[in-house]
Amino acid sequence: MSDLRPGATNTLVDVSGLRVGHAQRVGDGWLSGTTVVLAPGDGAVGGVDVRGGGPGTRETDLLDPRNQVERVQAVVLTGGSAYGLAACDGVVSRLADAGVGFPVGGPGEVVPIVPGAVVFDLGRGGDFGARPDAALGAAAYDAAAGEGGVRPLAQGCVGAGTGAVAGGLKGGVGSASTVLPDGTTVAALAVVNAVGSTVDLRTGELLGLRHVLVGEVDVLGRPDAADLQAAGDAAAALAQPGRVLATTLAVLATDARLTKAQCQKLAGIGHDGLARAIDPVHTMFDGDTVFALSTTDREAPDPVAFHVLLSAAGGCVSRAVVHAMLAATSVASPAGAWRSYRDAFPTAFRTSTKG
Amino acid sequence: MSDLRPGATNTLVDVSGLRVGHAQRVGDGWLSGTTVVLAPGDGAVGGVDVRGGGPGTRETDLLDPRNQVERVQAVVLTGGSAYGLAACDGVVSRLADAGVGFPVGGPGEVVPIVPGAVVFDLGRGGDFGARPDAALGAAAYDAAAGEGGVRPLAQGCVGAGTGAVAGGLKGGVGSASTVLPDGTTVAALAVVNAVGSTVDLRTGELLGLRHVLVGEVDVLGRPDAADLQAAGDAAAALAQPGRVLATTLAVLATDARLTKAQCQKLAGIGHDGLARAIDPVHTMFDGDTVFALSTTDREAPDPVAFHVLLSAAGGCVSRAVVHAMLAATSVASPAGAWRSYRDAFPTAFRTSTKG
Repeated sequence: MSDLRPGATNTLVDVSGLRVGHAQRVGDGWLSGTTVVLAPGDGAVGGVDVRGGGPGTRETDLLDPRNQVERVQAVVLTGGSAYGLAACDGVVSRLADAGVGFPVGGPGEVVPIVPGAVVFDLGRGGDFGARPDAALGAAAYDAAAGEGGVRPLAQGCVGAGTGAVAGGLKGGVGSASTVLPDGTTVAALAVVNAVGSTVDLRTGELLGLRHVLVGEVDVLGRPDAADLQAAGDAAAALAQPGRVLATTLAVLATDARLTKAQCQKLAGIGHDGLARAIDPVHTMFDGDTVFALSTTDREAPDPVAFHVLLSAAGGCVSRAVVHAMLAATSVASPAGAWRSYRDAFPTAFRTSTKG
Repeated sequence: MSDLRPGATNTLVDVSGLRVGHAQRVGDGWLSGTTVVLAPGDGAVGGVDVRGGGPGTRETDLLDPRNQVERVQAVVLTGGSAYGLAACDGVVSRLADAGVGFPVGGPGEVVPIVPGAVVFDLGRGGDFGARPDAALGAAAYDAAAGEGGVRPLAQGCVGAGTGAVAGGLKGGVGSASTVLPDGTTVAALAVVNAVGSTVDLRTGELLGLRHVLVGEVDVLGRPDAADLQAAGDAAAALAQPGRVLATTLAVLATDARLTKAQCQKLAGIGHDGLARAIDPVHTMFDGDTVFALSTTDREAPDPVAFHVLLSAAGGCVSRAVVHAMLAATSVASPAGAWRSYRDAFPTAFRTSTKG
């Protein structure tokens, strides 16, 4: 796999045609947001795999390969737990206004197909009732549909990652892409908000670090013992199962022409990427869900090409988790304070230069 | 997780009542075998999760939590690809003779419930037709039902792991157990036979090594550059997707009282353990399947206890993979030669002392 390289931006939007927008509110009791992935044209072929024990989802049954509709116009990832599913309504409205969706009648008579999933971040800004709604979903749509949605793709404490916490550290949004030797692009965006830890508690190293590409991150080594002890103490105090609810979400995408069933397989492989970067994951207190999108711009892969794509996809998800943790910044609200990996493990970086 | 310790044998049979037997044939074109896990009494509550793209299974639909039968009397893991499913017949016959199974009529009128799954090892001994049948399944049953089946549990190139290969290295059977702070035991047995690698190709370290318990293995460090280069060259020549078919199987078991649905969840979490120890895994050329058994000897776990059990279960599977690779020995047949991890990376051990 030494011939793998990231795409131009090393994010999800390296899959041509995809656009991503974030909207969030911070302060006045808020610490939450919504991220929208917009498919190009009449949509992308979609798949999903739900592996967490406490999911909050919408339009996932439609993505069963046995069912009718093949293409989705957008995927919504959002804070707000089950309440946050309302953010999808705002995206549906915007798409309907634009006349984009599954055609069911005459001109403009469409049903926008917008699968979505939520992370648990209720109350992290101090107000249990401050959670994404249709208006915030529409704002995320607007951010994606406007020029700003294309690139660069913001990562860290933005969109659905605004209130994200993982193993006691501040989580967030991360993304990564890979261009395969045959020119196919595969990319992932993750919202890292987990009961489990992204850190190897024995060494302080990010679990996913062994999967990053050469030169991709500015981590220079393992943190020293003092950092590790302090972080371990903090994590032990925070990350008590039963007192924490979470969920990590991801969107995988490729320009290879995949069937709906292959998209489901791609989503499933994405969970292996989560397992390598978060431990434990898929718990009963997480609703971990991975979506997969195929823009079908390129040819359908033969079995070996599909194998190579799947293998790289797992890596993209692990790397997206690493990028999320490295992009996150420490956050304090009336409900708590969460340190970033950078602030918790400064000696892993040694200097403040960014790679 | 520093308060985790292995059970008395650090294998699957630390779950009280479970028995394991291996049968195999080596030479004269053979390099394959069968492993049987026997449940105590009238059976164990069972679950399964199939994540590989090329599975060969039997009685897995019965394990769907919506379906009727709750308890299984045995689980069969076997070489021989789809042909090898015949090994289950021999186990069913033995159980029927013993009058053990799902009662469907008068005395002795039972239907033994024996889920099974296969690994691909066809032709590895030189003869494509040398594969497990009902007689070999019965022999594995006899090994499990006899005194030898209880302990110690043989690991390495035995049973279903006899012909196993993983990423170009010799695979095999491995097992591990954990006793949780509340006294619950959870344990795993894995048959490691994968398209992907169990080795981090950048360092030569077993991927699952970070998940082992203190003092559990005799690996002393990372191999030196010469070992790594030689192994990388060998792996590159062997592990070409499309030319390799594989499958890793596992059985997770616990004495906690789980429902059938919880067993399915437990099996699902087992796949995270595979993902951390094998990369890639769940490919279209693997039929990776995890079974889960609950002997129901202990109380039903509350949500937090179930969380702790699930988290430890993932670790058991990763450790079982590590133990399989460390127990395997180099094997040559008319069809090929496969080096063990120990022989491929001798400098990771430095001395020949076993820990």
